[in-house]
Amino acid sequence: MLERALEAARAGRARAEADLFELLSIPSVSSESEHRDDCRRAAAWLEERFRHMGLRTEMVDVHEGGHPVLVAEWLDRPGAPTLTTYGHYDVQPPDPLDEWRTPPFEPAVRDGFVYARGADDNKGQHLASVKAAEHWLAAGGPPGNHRVLIEGEEEMSGRSLPDYVRDNADRLATDYLLAADGTFTAAGQPNLLTGLRGLLYTEIEVTGPRVDLHSGLFGGVAPNPLNSLAHIIAGLKDREGRVLIPGFYDDVRAPAPAELEAWDRVPVTDQDLMERMGVTELAGEPGQPTRHRLWARPTLDVHGIAGGFTGEGSKTVIPARARAKVSMRLVPDQDPERVFAALSEFAPSLATPGTRARVVELNTALPVLVDVSHPGIGAASRAYEAACGAAPLLMREGATVPVVADFKEALGTHLIVTGFGLPDDGLHSPNERFSLDHYHRATEMAIHLMQELARADG
Amino acid sequence: MLERALEAARAGRARAEADLFELLSIPSVSSESEHRDDCRRAAAWLEERFRHMGLRTEMVDVHEGGHPVLVAEWLDRPGAPTLTTYGHYDVQPPDPLDEWRTPPFEPAVRDGFVYARGADDNKGQHLASVKAAEHWLAAGGPPGNHRVLIEGEEEMSGRSLPDYVRDNADRLATDYLLAADGTFTAAGQPNLLTGLRGLLYTEIEVTGPRVDLHSGLFGGVAPNPLNSLAHIIAGLKDREGRVLIPGFYDDVRAPAPAELEAWDRVPVTDQDLMERMGVTELAGEPGQPTRHRLWARPTLDVHGIAGGFTGEGSKTVIPARARAKVSMRLVPDQDPERVFAALSEFAPSLATPGTRARVVELNTALPVLVDVSHPGIGAASRAYEAACGAAPLLMREGATVPVVADFKEALGTHLIVTGFGLPDDGLHSPNERFSLDHYHRATEMAIHLMQELARADG
Repeated sequence: MLERALEAARAGRARAEADLFELLSIPSVSSESEHRDDCRRAAAWLEERFRHMGLRTEMVDVHEGGHPVLVAEWLDRPGAPTLTTYGHYDVQPPDPLDEWRTPPFEPAVRDGFVYARGADDNKGQHLASVKAAEHWLAAGGPPGNHRVLIEGEEEMSGRSLPDYVRDNADRLATDYLLAADGTFTAAGQPNLLTGLRGLLYTEIEVTGPRVDLHSGLFGGVAPNPLNSLAHIIAGLKDREGRVLIPGFYDDVRAPAPAELEAWDRVPVTDQDLMERMGVTELAGEPGQPTRHRLWARPTLDVHGIAGGFTGEGSKTVIPARARAKVSMRLVPDQDPERVFAALSEFAPSLATPGTRARVVELNTALPVLVDVSHPGIGAASRAYEAACGAAPLLMREGATVPVVADFKEALGTHLIVTGFGLPDDGLHSPNERFSLDHYHRATEMAIHLMQELARADG
Repeated sequence: MLERALEAARAGRARAEADLFELLSIPSVSSESEHRDDCRRAAAWLEERFRHMGLRTEMVDVHEGGHPVLVAEWLDRPGAPTLTTYGHYDVQPPDPLDEWRTPPFEPAVRDGFVYARGADDNKGQHLASVKAAEHWLAAGGPPGNHRVLIEGEEEMSGRSLPDYVRDNADRLATDYLLAADGTFTAAGQPNLLTGLRGLLYTEIEVTGPRVDLHSGLFGGVAPNPLNSLAHIIAGLKDREGRVLIPGFYDDVRAPAPAELEAWDRVPVTDQDLMERMGVTELAGEPGQPTRHRLWARPTLDVHGIAGGFTGEGSKTVIPARARAKVSMRLVPDQDPERVFAALSEFAPSLATPGTRARVVELNTALPVLVDVSHPGIGAASRAYEAACGAAPLLMREGATVPVVADFKEALGTHLIVTGFGLPDDGLHSPNERFSLDHYHRATEMAIHLMQELARADG
């Protein structure tokens, strides 16, 4: 049976690529309201595939104004373990558009990679699991039960999936949960994640004069919200990278000795990171090793500052208000709400005379630590060895997969957190791409995983 | 003759308003390339009026890609003094558009004010001089010679007019120059300016990673140009308003005792300024009185920060680069080039590890001190008393009229720097307006001024 599923996968590669390109052509940008219908279209495209495969499907609108959660199930092996695979059909906004070599929603293949927004994050990755189920079904059905949960609000940290999972925990009971939204450590080197950072994403708004003012007429007496915002941001994190919010580091848990030992085997050097980012120097908290700064230490970044005039020319305006998008990556055991409370008190104290600041919470995600003693970890390791010829490293990740925390909390299931991206796939950047070879290996890994989980259980 | 000109002005008010509304309907935004033809259209509209009045006109394209300088002359009184009046037909960009009560280029009258971009700055003001000349010509010709110079690059600090004036100084020789681009001190209280601040407008560009990065994957080791820019801006001016660029204040000249005495008579309180700006506290350099901070002290303001993501939603990007528009208002005897050199050296030293900053000069204007002992000042005072029933205050202004410095340098002429705006006309802001009563009084003041200058000379 395993062999028949693998053969179907190998024979169906051209078709699998065509399917991926079709899904990538749908501009399902969840955070932009003009793409609302495109998000639903992506969900409907997937649902149609699941129906065709013979899965029971359900498209759930959890919250008005949100994007639907798609559930598809094949639960025909009573007594066998259930694997739930997670994915998200929504993508990041593609801007800056002019930096794309080919348009973000017209998939183009160059050198074995497909270039398109969402290719790696996450359409290529979840479609591989879908394909794995399809091939197992063509080979007579998977050895265990399988459920697929695909949401449309990952890139906007929406509440639809987390609320759906929490409210339907019994019905969604599962033995294992595979979340494949991550990245190989290096070419040829997969990993299983033992920790993910959380997120607190905020907007800091500063108000000053009632209306925009002329800097000639009022400069010297007018409070300037942009200058104030610069003082606030500079006051939140020092030049060297220490976050200055009172109590920020209080709840940071030091990594366990076993983790530190595994990290020593991760073959990524500072030089690799510098090349990947195109910098000549790494930034970050003094006295903390690189891996700690990436995985086990929280940080704070500004993503954009709005207000005043940034167009062509030289307008001399002192704006009435300015806003900065500021996020913090959090680590176990930091609590986003506690950090938000501290920031909300601290930021206004940094505003310059005559201006006022307030902090708005846009979204949060809890940091996650994964229990690595469950049988799914061994099963996934063997599946990786079979599909990729390499055992996965046990390591953490600096990014946030908010839903993993929600799954852990609501379903209490065994987590398998991994991914098939490559470090330079350009997630959230122009010219995002995904290796077609990885796409097919991800499919085969999922085919093996279904087999290994049934064996581990039996 | 004077009476006939004044009668023509009073009889022609409806026509004068219609003319103004026509000129205000032309969106002559000089800094935006899509409005290039509109700028030329505004110049052509004015030229057509001058031709109709019987003036010799010339439309000069000084620099390729620039906006034309318009010259119109009536020099039929050999031996009589020549007055040159200055204006600019270009306007600031109207954004933010959604804050306008009526569209910026569809003049609307409410409560005796015309609302439109450019109403005060500067179309209403220079059209008043044009009207004055028109009424004098209808009354048999002005008592002295008259030249009008109207440019289209004031709001973008373009080089066309300054270069034209410098290269044609002999042909443009004039006894007096009237630049009316300013504002009454308060309702009913005109002024003549004895000093103007200069300007150094720059863009500070910070580069970090080669491409935009995901803040989850790289946050903690990635240099962030926006965080760096915040540190740079915070390092350029402290929380209290002191500019920290080395040597910045070295060349600042203290105001003369006679100026300080005149300033004591200026009836504007801190409370007035706070109400005008809609703030509860004045910002600015500690230890410096309000008027000094506005007129005699330099300052530094940020006008906008670009880079990263400021749209809807919560994109977690660390941008490859960020830019801030930063300007400094300069005072006598600061030299913009010297300040630029100091800033260019200082700003990069404030960049955070892994980022690099450079400063680009967008434009400059010299600060100006006006000699107030020439007969034009007395003539202008009498003209104001006749037209407005109030003697003008002698004071400085915090804003920049770059061309005034150019006129002073190239023509060495007697300057009359004044203006008919009101403090809450909303220059450079949404809902800019100009009092129609002031428009007509400005016309009459210019009619009187032509008479007074001829008398002062004779």
